[in-house]
Amino acid sequence: MQSFADRLSDAVRDRRTPLCVGIDPHLHLLPTSVRRRFEGLSGRAYREAAAIAVGDWAVMVLEAVEGAVPAVKPQVAFFEALGAPGVVALERVVDVARQLDLIVVLDAKRGDIGSTAEAYAHGALDDDGPLASDSVTLAPYLGPESLAPFLKRCDAGKGVFLLVRTSNPGASVWQTEGAEPAAPKVAAWVEAQSAERLGDCGLGPVGAVVAATVPDEAKAWRAAMPSAWFLVPGYGAQGGGAADVAPLFRDDGLGALINSSRGVLFGEGDEDDYRAAVRRRADRAADELGRVAGLR
Amino acid sequence: MQSFADRLSDAVRDRRTPLCVGIDPHLHLLPTSVRRRFEGLSGRAYREAAAIAVGDWAVMVLEAVEGAVPAVKPQVAFFEALGAPGVVALERVVDVARQLDLIVVLDAKRGDIGSTAEAYAHGALDDDGPLASDSVTLAPYLGPESLAPFLKRCDAGKGVFLLVRTSNPGASVWQTEGAEPAAPKVAAWVEAQSAERLGDCGLGPVGAVVAATVPDEAKAWRAAMPSAWFLVPGYGAQGGGAADVAPLFRDDGLGALINSSRGVLFGEGDEDDYRAAVRRRADRAADELGRVAGLR
Repeated sequence: MQSFADRLSDAVRDRRTPLCVGIDPHLHLLPTSVRRRFEGLSGRAYREAAAIAVGDWAVMVLEAVEGAVPAVKPQVAFFEALGAPGVVALERVVDVARQLDLIVVLDAKRGDIGSTAEAYAHGALDDDGPLASDSVTLAPYLGPESLAPFLKRCDAGKGVFLLVRTSNPGASVWQTEGAEPAAPKVAAWVEAQSAERLGDCGLGPVGAVVAATVPDEAKAWRAAMPSAWFLVPGYGAQGGGAADVAPLFRDDGLGALINSSRGVLFGEGDEDDYRAAVRRRADRAADELGRVAGLR
Repeated sequence: MQSFADRLSDAVRDRRTPLCVGIDPHLHLLPTSVRRRFEGLSGRAYREAAAIAVGDWAVMVLEAVEGAVPAVKPQVAFFEALGAPGVVALERVVDVARQLDLIVVLDAKRGDIGSTAEAYAHGALDDDGPLASDSVTLAPYLGPESLAPFLKRCDAGKGVFLLVRTSNPGASVWQTEGAEPAAPKVAAWVEAQSAERLGDCGLGPVGAVVAATVPDEAKAWRAAMPSAWFLVPGYGAQGGGAADVAPLFRDDGLGALINSSRGVLFGEGDEDDYRAAVRRRADRAADELGRVAGLR
C-alpha cells in the first residue's frame, strides 16, 4: 500500500491546495432546514433525529468540497455527543468521504496504553474496523511506547497526527513553558518516527498538530520536524491568517495541511443554497492557501 | 447535588473496599457461551453480534459485583472498536451500573479544546446526554484552560480523573523525566482544583490517575495531592500488589480507588458459573484491598 505521506502529497498537489475542511457539526449553526429536523425534541429522540440530520448535512458538505480540497477532518466529539446514532452518522461520513476521494483525518485525540491503545487504533484506522479512516489525531501524554499500535498502522499505509503545539489560549502551560517543556520532546519523537518511514515525497506518516496561532514559532517547528506532515488548526475562525501559516510549508508547498472548519462550514448564503455557499467559501480558502503554499 | 467526592467516599465506606472493577471486554477472553455468539462472523455483522453479546456479558459482571464494590470503570476503547453497536452496548452498561448503585468511571481519556471539549463533557457526563456517567478520565496535554467544561460539571456533582502518572512501561518519558517534568505540574493543578471544591469528606471532585506500578513514588503523590481522589490502575494483572497501593490511601482509608479489570473479569470457574466466578474474585480483591485501606 502507498504510504500515507505520499497519498496526502499526491492529493495536495492534485487539488493545488493544502486546505483541509473540518466537519464540525455545531448544531446551533446548521442551516435552518437541517436544524428544524430536531429542534423541539429532547433526550434520545433528539439525539436520533439530530444525528440523522447531521449525517445528511455532512454529506452535503463532502459533496460540496469534492474535488476542491485534498482532505476532511471530522471532529469525533460532536458526533459522540449524540450517542450511538451520532456514531452511525460518523461512520457514514467517513465512508462517503473516502468514496469521494477525500483523505480522512479523524480528529479523535485518542491516547491509551497496551490492549486499549490497540482497540483505539483498530477502531479508528483498520479497514475491517468501524471507521476505517486514513489517519487519526493522538494525544501524547502516555509516552512513546503507548503509540506502538498506531505506528503499526503507519507501516500499513495509515497516518497519525500527534498533538505537539495546539491553538488554544492556555496551550503553553503544559506544552512549551518551563526548563524542559514537553512539546519539543514530542516533536523530536515525531521527527524520528517519520524519518524512519519516509515516502517518495520525503515526508513520513507520523505527523504533528502545530497551531496557526503561534506564527513566531512556526519556523522553528518546521525546522524541528522536517520529515513530518503538520495538521494545522487555528486558521480562519480561530484567528490565524494565511501569512501566519506560510513558514509551516516546505519549499515545495507540501508538509502542512491547513484546517478550516467554521470558516468554510457556516456563513453568508447558507439559507439560499447551502452546497453552493460551502463550495464558494472552500474555493476562496483553497485559493488563498494554495497561493501561500506556492501551489498556484 | 452531593459532591462526587462525597458520593464516592460514601460508597467506599458502605462497601468497605476501594475496589473498582474495570469493564474491559477483551473479546478473546470472554466465556465460551458469550464468544460463540459472534465467532465466525465478520465485518458489520460481527460487530453487531459482538456488541450485543458484550452488552449482555457486561450486565452479568455488573450484577455479579453489585453490592460488593463501590464503582466500575467501563473502558470506552473496547466498545468503540465495535462501532455504533458498541456504543449502544456502552450506553446500556452505564445505565444498568447506575441503576445498581455502582459509581461509573468512564475510562475515555478524552481531551480537546473549546466547543469540542464542551461536546466531550456533555457526551460523557451530562444527565441529559448519551452516557450520563458519574466521572470520566481525561488527558492533560492541551492545558488547564481546556478542562474548563469538565470543571463546570465537577461543580454540578460530577467528577474527573486527570492522567498524572500512568502504569505503562514507557510512561516516564513524557511524565516524570527531565528538569521540569509534566506530571508534578499536572498534579499541582489537580490539587488546586480539588482544594477549591472540597466535600464533607475533605476530598474534591478533580482526581488523578496514579499507577500502582510505581510504589516508590506513591507517598510523594499522596503528599502532592492531599485533596484529590486517585484512580489507580496497575493492581493485579498489571503487576501492582496490595502493599504497593497502601501509601496511596489517606489515614481514614479513603482517597484511592483501586482498579482491577482482568483479575476480576477472567479466570478459573468462568465456564461453570460465570457470575459466581466473578463475584468470588471480586470478593477476594475487595477483601484484600479493604484490609490494606483499613476499611475492614
